Amino acid sequence: MSGRAPRGRRRLSVDERRDELIAAALQLFSSRSPDEISIDDVAATAGASRALVYHYFGGKQELYIAALGSAARQLSELLEPPTEGSPLDRLRLSLERYFDFVERHAAGFTALLRGGPANRSGEIGEIVDGIRKLLLRRILHALDIESAPPILRITLRSWLASVETAGLDWLENRDIDRAQLEHVLVDQCVVMLDVAGYHEPAVAALFHRLAREEEIAGGAEPAPA
Amino acid sequence: MSGRAPRGRRRLSVDERRDELIAAALQLFSSRSPDEISIDDVAATAGASRALVYHYFGGKQELYIAALGSAARQLSELLEPPTEGSPLDRLRLSLERYFDFVERHAAGFTALLRGGPANRSGEIGEIVDGIRKLLLRRILHALDIESAPPILRITLRSWLASVETAGLDWLENRDIDRAQLEHVLVDQCVVMLDVAGYHEPAVAALFHRLAREEEIAGGAEPAPA
Repeated sequence: MSGRAPRGRRRLSVDERRDELIAAALQLFSSRSPDEISIDDVAATAGASRALVYHYFGGKQELYIAALGSAARQLSELLEPPTEGSPLDRLRLSLERYFDFVERHAAGFTALLRGGPANRSGEIGEIVDGIRKLLLRRILHALDIESAPPILRITLRSWLASVETAGLDWLENRDIDRAQLEHVLVDQCVVMLDVAGYHEPAVAALFHRLAREEEIAGGAEPAPA
Repeated sequence: MSGRAPRGRRRLSVDERRDELIAAALQLFSSRSPDEISIDDVAATAGASRALVYHYFGGKQELYIAALGSAARQLSELLEPPTEGSPLDRLRLSLERYFDFVERHAAGFTALLRGGPANRSGEIGEIVDGIRKLLLRRILHALDIESAPPILRITLRSWLASVETAGLDWLENRDIDRAQLEHVLVDQCVVMLDVAGYHEPAVAALFHRLAREEEIAGGAEPAPA
């Protein structure tokens, strides 16, 4: 558990120590839900004292929020929109990175989104909501859309919810190949945008622009129809 | 606020009084989130005393959980699978009933699913999860499927998440006609099943069976492709 040698500990700055404790918490959250983890576990994993963890965070809830904030920043960096490749290539790459994240933080991701035994204070709800909003803004920005028609906004939020749910199901059941699941979700995105375009001409125009870009990039694999 | 006359109050049984208090809480949750509602508000709405509310529920959290459980039962009854009509007619009817529910419990629905300031104890998370699982089982049962292939299970859970998210967005923004949104979600379900069928032959077979039933029922409006 406390296999990490505390060498060089004295030279760590306050921020570095804090980061180390957060990293230890996130490492534990990958296999156990926050409710199953004690301050002692985090201290042992970081090779630090229980008192130090309390000193930096004040309590378990605060440590949990700090760890969640740190994970949210990691996700945000991972999902910097790719600039290379066809629209579908970029979507595939982002989805792959999302599932890397889901896999790395498995238990924490589940505990957080499942609304399980962990109480969610307002702060935690805000971090989760913040990520969802950030991803929506990023997608709209990548699509060059300033103000999304309601149907497009709802479709993208729905698709993001679909991805989250698929991630939770995959962690729970692991009875489908991850790459195949990512493929299904990319296809879902395409057909959901197509449906949105059927109801809203501005989305249809966007859909056709993306399809043209896809064709020019030579990556055109037609959506299943 | 306390406009409901307390006539006949003495004749109410314990269960009836309890139900009345829950109904008052749910009435308040339609326009305000649980965090904004006090025991006094509930007592005033029900024309009861604060002491009576405490007597029956012990506290606000317990009242909230009881109200949520009651709302969950309402939703479960509303979403008894229709037995008449083509597959798409049945889907449309269920979705309409779902949005009736969303509209009736607007603020409570949002507070519950948004993971906002309201803390969610394990019990609340279980009720929410329980509804999701119930709806999935109902859909599979209505489709005559005993054991769902993983892709079908994930697709249906994803679509249910998409519906939830669309409901939240609609309550927040109300910038799209409810009937049109329901129409979009029905179309989404069709194309998501189609995508799932593209990845899993058993789902393709199901999709074609449903399409045939739809045609026989004469309701065939082809999915946008």
